[in-house]
Amino acid sequence: MKVFIFGAALRKDSLNQELARQAARILGEVSGISVDLAAFSEFPMPVYDGDLEESSGMPEGAEKLAARIAAADAIVISAPEYNGSISGALKNAIDWVSRSDNNPFDGRPLLLMGASPGALGAVRGLWHTRVPFEAMGSLVYPELFGLPRAHQAFADIGFADAKTESRLKELLQDFSKFALKLKN
Amino acid sequence: MKVFIFGAALRKDSLNQELARQAARILGEVSGISVDLAAFSEFPMPVYDGDLEESSGMPEGAEKLAARIAAADAIVISAPEYNGSISGALKNAIDWVSRSDNNPFDGRPLLLMGASPGALGAVRGLWHTRVPFEAMGSLVYPELFGLPRAHQAFADIGFADAKTESRLKELLQDFSKFALKLKN
Amino acid sequence: MKVFIFGAALRKDSLNQELARQAARILGEVSGISVDLAAFSEFPMPVYDGDLEESSGMPEGAEKLAARIAAADAIVISAPEYNGSISGALKNAIDWVSRSDNNPFDGRPLLLMGASPGALGAVRGLWHTRVPFEAMGSLVYPELFGLPRAHQAFADIGFADAKTESRLKELLQDFSKFALKLKN
Amino acid sequence: MKVFIFGAALRKDSLNQELARQAARILGEVSGISVDLAAFSEFPMPVYDGDLEESSGMPEGAEKLAARIAAADAIVISAPEYNGSISGALKNAIDWVSRSDNNPFDGRPLLLMGASPGALGAVRGLWHTRVPFEAMGSLVYPELFGLPRAHQAFADIGFADAKTESRLKELLQDFSKFALKLKN
Repeated sequence: MKVFIFGAALRKDSLNQELARQAARILGEVSGISVDLAAFSEFPMPVYDGDLEESSGMPEGAEKLAARIAAADAIVISAPEYNGSISGALKNAIDWVSRSDNNPFDGRPLLLMGASPGALGAVRGLWHTRVPFEAMGSLVYPELFGLPRAHQAFADIGFADAKTESRLKELLQDFSKFALKLKN
Repeated sequence: MKVFIFGAALRKDSLNQELARQAARILGEVSGISVDLAAFSEFPMPVYDGDLEESSGMPEGAEKLAARIAAADAIVISAPEYNGSISGALKNAIDWVSRSDNNPFDGRPLLLMGASPGALGAVRGLWHTRVPFEAMGSLVYPELFGLPRAHQAFADIGFADAKTESRLKELLQDFSKFALKLKN
Repeated sequence: MKVFIFGAALRKDSLNQELARQAARILGEVSGISVDLAAFSEFPMPVYDGDLEESSGMPEGAEKLAARIAAADAIVISAPEYNGSISGALKNAIDWVSRSDNNPFDGRPLLLMGASPGALGAVRGLWHTRVPFEAMGSLVYPELFGLPRAHQAFADIGFADAKTESRLKELLQDFSKFALKLKN
Repeated sequence: MKVFIFGAALRKDSLNQELARQAARILGEVSGISVDLAAFSEFPMPVYDGDLEESSGMPEGAEKLAARIAAADAIVISAPEYNGSISGALKNAIDWVSRSDNNPFDGRPLLLMGASPGALGAVRGLWHTRVPFEAMGSLVYPELFGLPRAHQAFADIGFADAKTESRLKELLQDFSKFALKLKN
């Protein structure tokens, strides 16, 4: 089973990209799972514009993102919370990808995580982030993973707090079982 | 009282921009109200990127949008529904504007409308569109205006259906009273 | 595979109970599926009150509902929209059932439907109805079934419109496959 | 200006009722404001049932609640979060009150607060609690007040932490100004 993972922030030192890396590390150790870890910056695309789509088609970045999703059996996204909701950057990527001939989100298991320097760990925003994915047919895993005070959460290897490591590990294992059942 | 109005879609023949124009026409006839109608394309901005912000500051389009909002007493936005939620383009604009020193959304009355060729008239998406505005302190008017089958809704002047005209007129008058009370 | 079905309204002539009956009829014809159809009125319970719970435990109606859910492999609920959101009656039942030692919603596939005399068919409310179920671990199927103008939708047998019958049939088949995969 | 306040939980030692009491104390000291503090248990009502409504009309508790709201210029509710969403008890009260001839929520300013023993302070649930009130026309104040670790938050008089007291005081003053403007 192939799992596609990325952090949905463009910033180089993004806490969400770091959380995506940790998830990739943990999942990579599970036998039978191959991980495809991407940086969000690999998929550059302009703000969605219907006229642009008509004249030039899908931007290359959106095509690439759609292809990477379509090649995977399951998706893990670490998404920041902006203004209590989904980030515009991630929603814009969803809007472009939703215009492909084959909607690659449809029927794919998806785990949402979020890292934030604040006390709530992006969880409030994740509840809004679910909605467009579910509207497009993704099988969003009920449990969400929020990492509060994320600027202090990472160690040289893994997490500063062993409980965080085991909490994420357990969730990723549960999600993998869910995704594997749906694949078969 | 000054009301800033725009349709939150970049497409030239956007149904939401047409709905924004109709709202501007109706509000322009109310004594005591001056209307500032904009096209969303006047405010070009890249997808939000924290590193870009650090190196280059706010993009000019976001600064202009923030200034136009700050100069108004109330805001009317006609927003499309993409994938059951807020459009990435609008959310991206909110994310950039929220980074200005003075959050211009805070405390400003806001009316949300939406046009769609479908049967539901974008109303489902408007309920998600409310959230980031409310998180930033906007006083979002409880009633929302959805225009279903919008591709058939407009006449040479105004709306094909007189009931739509009067429904929108009444709502805009109610919203104006609400905004005027909050201004004083 | 056993599917538990009910319409989440207490009214005898509830349109949602009628929609639940139609879903039960269609699912009952699928080989390998046994249907357990209930009326919401079989599970009477008072408004949740923490003191009442402490003094008297779970009400019998909530215990029965929890047991019927726990005995099934998947759930189908037809839920009305009240004031743009979940009905208080259904949310109250969730609140009580969530207090059982074994949360029976956890990990169970759930399909949400809604009937309404209006033009939108309860779909807006279903997006809020998802939330507490997902918070409790239910695997809510991404697609929702809304039945608009429900007071005119039913025939002596089945639906007045053959397209509605085939739309629901297709969705129930897709949901059954989803639930069956998760069971194995 | 009259402000109606209650904690939306039936339990006697409810943390939300205690938070409502604190808000009443603070608002009671503002000149020009009279406070009407209620316990939710003053408004007993059964779970909403359309047949019961037809045969017996509105329950007395719902009529009383509607009247207390209608007699006030603004409302403050401290609402618990159950299963990530609005409590069934509060939603049930909304459903009944929404059936009165005069919808008393329409046009009334409303401040939502929430207390919880957990780390998030009920804020996630408050975002869902907003929705039915807004659907009924309430002017829900954008800012929400969440009180995390509420079981340790109260002192003999007021709050254990002076910052909580001043944070709530400031919010209540801002809300009062908002409500007063809308009254005039």
